Amino acid sequence: MSGKELLYLDWAATSPPETKILQECLELSCESFGNPSSAHDQGKQARSLLEDARSSLANFLEHSNGPGSKPPVKKDRGKIVFTGSGTEADQIPLLSVLRSALSKPGGVKNCHIVVSAIEHPAVFAQATLLEKLGVRLTVVNPGPDGRVSPEKIREALCPHTRLVAVMAVNNETGAVQNTEEIGKAVQEAGAGPGSREIIFHVDAVQALGKVPFSPDSAFVSSAAFSAHKVGGPRGVGALWISKEMEALGVGGGQEGGLRSGTENLFGALAFSRCAAKAAENLDERLAHARRLETSLIEGIRLIPGARILPECRMPGDGAFSPWIVNATFPGLGGEVFARALSDEGIAVSTGSACSHLERRRSHRVLDAMAIPPELAFSSIRISFGNTSRTRDIERFLSVTADLYRRLKT
Amino acid sequence: MSGKELLYLDWAATSPPETKILQECLELSCESFGNPSSAHDQGKQARSLLEDARSSLANFLEHSNGPGSKPPVKKDRGKIVFTGSGTEADQIPLLSVLRSALSKPGGVKNCHIVVSAIEHPAVFAQATLLEKLGVRLTVVNPGPDGRVSPEKIREALCPHTRLVAVMAVNNETGAVQNTEEIGKAVQEAGAGPGSREIIFHVDAVQALGKVPFSPDSAFVSSAAFSAHKVGGPRGVGALWISKEMEALGVGGGQEGGLRSGTENLFGALAFSRCAAKAAENLDERLAHARRLETSLIEGIRLIPGARILPECRMPGDGAFSPWIVNATFPGLGGEVFARALSDEGIAVSTGSACSHLERRRSHRVLDAMAIPPELAFSSIRISFGNTSRTRDIERFLSVTADLYRRLKT
Repeated sequence: MSGKELLYLDWAATSPPETKILQECLELSCESFGNPSSAHDQGKQARSLLEDARSSLANFLEHSNGPGSKPPVKKDRGKIVFTGSGTEADQIPLLSVLRSALSKPGGVKNCHIVVSAIEHPAVFAQATLLEKLGVRLTVVNPGPDGRVSPEKIREALCPHTRLVAVMAVNNETGAVQNTEEIGKAVQEAGAGPGSREIIFHVDAVQALGKVPFSPDSAFVSSAAFSAHKVGGPRGVGALWISKEMEALGVGGGQEGGLRSGTENLFGALAFSRCAAKAAENLDERLAHARRLETSLIEGIRLIPGARILPECRMPGDGAFSPWIVNATFPGLGGEVFARALSDEGIAVSTGSACSHLERRRSHRVLDAMAIPPELAFSSIRISFGNTSRTRDIERFLSVTADLYRRLKT
Repeated sequence: MSGKELLYLDWAATSPPETKILQECLELSCESFGNPSSAHDQGKQARSLLEDARSSLANFLEHSNGPGSKPPVKKDRGKIVFTGSGTEADQIPLLSVLRSALSKPGGVKNCHIVVSAIEHPAVFAQATLLEKLGVRLTVVNPGPDGRVSPEKIREALCPHTRLVAVMAVNNETGAVQNTEEIGKAVQEAGAGPGSREIIFHVDAVQALGKVPFSPDSAFVSSAAFSAHKVGGPRGVGALWISKEMEALGVGGGQEGGLRSGTENLFGALAFSRCAAKAAENLDERLAHARRLETSLIEGIRLIPGARILPECRMPGDGAFSPWIVNATFPGLGGEVFARALSDEGIAVSTGSACSHLERRRSHRVLDAMAIPPELAFSSIRISFGNTSRTRDIERFLSVTADLYRRLKT
């Protein structure tokens, strides 16, 4: 790729950093180097900055809900727990259910959880491991459009259900899930005969700063967010919670006991500021993203043989995040194609960076949508962000059309 | 404290940052912003830097063993798993034992673990929680000198023992533990009749860059380290492991499956470089630390009523890390005294910042050493580091003598 201008279209894996914000936050955190749990002035100074970052992030997550959003039902209903990653923010509620089950008579056998088949590995692999350890697991498949039906979730619930996890925006297809209706269904089941606590957890990593989502308006018990998807540093995430839970990983009791370990002040400051920036002008940015999405989807459909996944997806469809587009190029393996694009200076991916590690060559999300294996095998994910321009999409389309023609078998 | 020069004597809680190294690492990580698990060039570039940081840190941890150390028995026996904190590095082995127990017939009831009574909350609170969940736990008290006897650990082992955890250097008293002999005892038990795998985990957070410790020379299965104790950023730790284990928290499978979540490149780079810097001239720095320790201990003993904890501790004693000194000022509560010192611009602590959160007013470590409650209540911890000078100790002693005379009842 030397000599060629880099075209980064893998924002769903990680976004280019807000370098200036990060530098400022590093400086601040170096000045306030005390341990936020220390009682002396240096500790208090760090604690004060940390709590400001927490309130500011909570405020943004709950109240900056983008265009067309309803005002939140209650103010400041939840609280923020800073974590070491979006993955950790997903793990905490799932592992809290294991802790709770092990503390009760009957143990794990009386514990049932429900997750969608399209969850990020942080939820899906964790749920699968809990099942191996004796927890009862129901996996709910999406429809062919990549969306999970609230009715199917409702049908999966049983009197032993303790947790339901459905993500806000799928990281491979961009499919926006109906967390509002799913949350309602879970809440109704919890309030029904033999009323019980059911945690409704939402992995909102791909929603933050991209599409309207407020944990507060969706009957959500907990929601996971990650800083590095919105220009922040890798190594910090957040768990928003409105329901009490107890962590399985414990220690010094920081972050309300849910995430022990000395608090990452730099990460918290940078996450809070990058999230605020990502919230600015969400309506304008969404409109821009819809224009890019339209060019991209229409352009791909003009390439002979190429298809959008799912095929029903139309530009401007509110059921999809415009920032993520999945396309398939039959007759050419997705990994080979992604490598060829990388050689041309264009970064895209096949599925998520995480599942790439988890199990090579599997396409769990597309499989669950009943997409034929040969189409899944040839799929790539294109994802863009704030600084992406129309000419980036044009370059991608031109290089892609050329490469596909030359490389397909 | 306005107007008074800050005197920071709480390095065991967190150390002042190596600001220049952190800035350089942030710049590098912003340039290499790709997700290290991505297959394209941006991902590979980040991966390459991450793996360099990993090798360099492993090399330092295994081979930079300070004065008087023996050369490591085997080269590159272990590997490094980057974590989100020292706490997380402690949790992983303990939770892996829970995972393993839950996977087997008999479950947690056939699982026994042994920890010392003076462990950091990251080990102690985690072990206590495992006990609540059905794991059998033996807590081994130290002697009055704050050191855990290998013989007592040996006596605690049983055929169901799966993990033993004893820290390298106690964070409240500085007592250096005999991890070499303890490790041997654990290994012999594991190799004995009905041979079995026993994890010997060492929390080495307070050893790194402070006293000679190499996981490789101590029959250690895993060892936990933290970046922010050696000038690195908060929010990154490392688990050195030489024995296979499986994490209970899972996800995308990063870090060999032991710590899922997008890798924190900035943190890994900064930790690696700060650890290397902390290793420079360890013998000279130790000699300097011994001089400061001598001034401090002798000076405190000259203050009427004040005592060193444990009272048997002599300056220059290899059984204690010179960087941490615990002292008691009977007739004056430790928290009140620490606050009064903070008002004079001097930062010290009462116990660890973490246990401060965990349970206020408890003195688990000192209690386990059978130190009378009134002495524990009046204790403070003084800890210093690389840039501490003789005149800092002099100022501390002068202010302390004056304050204690005025404030004690």
